[in-house]
Amino acid sequence: MKYCSNCGQPVTLRIPEGDNLPRYVCDRCRIVHYQNPKIVAGCLPVWKNSGGEDQVLLCRRAIEPRHGFWTLPAGFMENAEILEQAAERESVEEAHTNIDELTLYTLISLPHINQIYIMYLANLRDQNFYPGVESLDVRLFHEHDIPWDSLAFHSIRFTLEKYFQDRKQNHYPVHTHTINTHNGKSADQ
Amino acid sequence: MKYCSNCGQPVTLRIPEGDNLPRYVCDRCRIVHYQNPKIVAGCLPVWKNSGGEDQVLLCRRAIEPRHGFWTLPAGFMENAEILEQAAERESVEEAHTNIDELTLYTLISLPHINQIYIMYLANLRDQNFYPGVESLDVRLFHEHDIPWDSLAFHSIRFTLEKYFQDRKQNHYPVHTHTINTHNGKSADQ
Repeated sequence: MKYCSNCGQPVTLRIPEGDNLPRYVCDRCRIVHYQNPKIVAGCLPVWKNSGGEDQVLLCRRAIEPRHGFWTLPAGFMENAEILEQAAERESVEEAHTNIDELTLYTLISLPHINQIYIMYLANLRDQNFYPGVESLDVRLFHEHDIPWDSLAFHSIRFTLEKYFQDRKQNHYPVHTHTINTHNGKSADQ
Repeated sequence: MKYCSNCGQPVTLRIPEGDNLPRYVCDRCRIVHYQNPKIVAGCLPVWKNSGGEDQVLLCRRAIEPRHGFWTLPAGFMENAEILEQAAERESVEEAHTNIDELTLYTLISLPHINQIYIMYLANLRDQNFYPGVESLDVRLFHEHDIPWDSLAFHSIRFTLEKYFQDRKQNHYPVHTHTINTHNGKSADQ
């Protein structure tokens, strides 16, 4: 931020009176421009095979960062949305899925990039999915086929690891976690 | 937003190519200025009375909106924080609490004001709390003393109601909820 979005004058970075963090401040219109973390909402769509092992849906990214790597459908939550709407919208945009039964699953803080991932488990209702414009490919994977070495983000790996662990007990509690530059590569987040 | 925060030129509100929502766009530096929901992080500090009924800590607001009304400590999450840090920081700022054992408790979407409340249960370690600059008063309440008619926000009421319901079973699952202009007053959020 270099200019005030309200009046167009240059802003200065300083600690406002009564505050304890540097903020972008406009000395003309007295506005403090706060900057806050963004929510990335998404889901883990599960295809329930009657009599067989359940499969999960992954998308291969057609965009940077991590072009060509596999991910769960997820993206920035929009204003005026609720969390579940955002998670479902991202799944529709990236994979044209038909999902329901969304249940909260992982909350992951990524303080080095000012993001919070909020991921849901979801039931995939049919196999009529196909790639959206941000995906090269969309496929169902058995656990032994997951491309662990080609996953786009640490947050996606964490969510998938918890899912396969929890599936053994058929119990899926909400997991909270932090990924930062110490336990994850910031470059690929 | 009226001016580009990168170059100071007036922005225009339009749907960028390949998008489906109106955004503030700078036609000079080609930046799309996205606007996203903010996270309000906070907690419900519990004072465990050995042999008696547990009490919860509430703060009486010294600031608008809802000056003079009672609330749980909560506020906007900052960049570079993790969720639990934000919840604890707000509790320290508003009530100088000494808390630990934070566990995720409620996630509340407020689409009409572009906010997501993320509230934790917390253990109050001592009674050395006192009001911060944003609080007029800080007190412990038994269930029958909660000022239900003087609570600041619907999100706070929801979190307290769930807590007293769950306490009967001594089981505190994570609750997700939506409050909008249909089931809550937008004016007091």
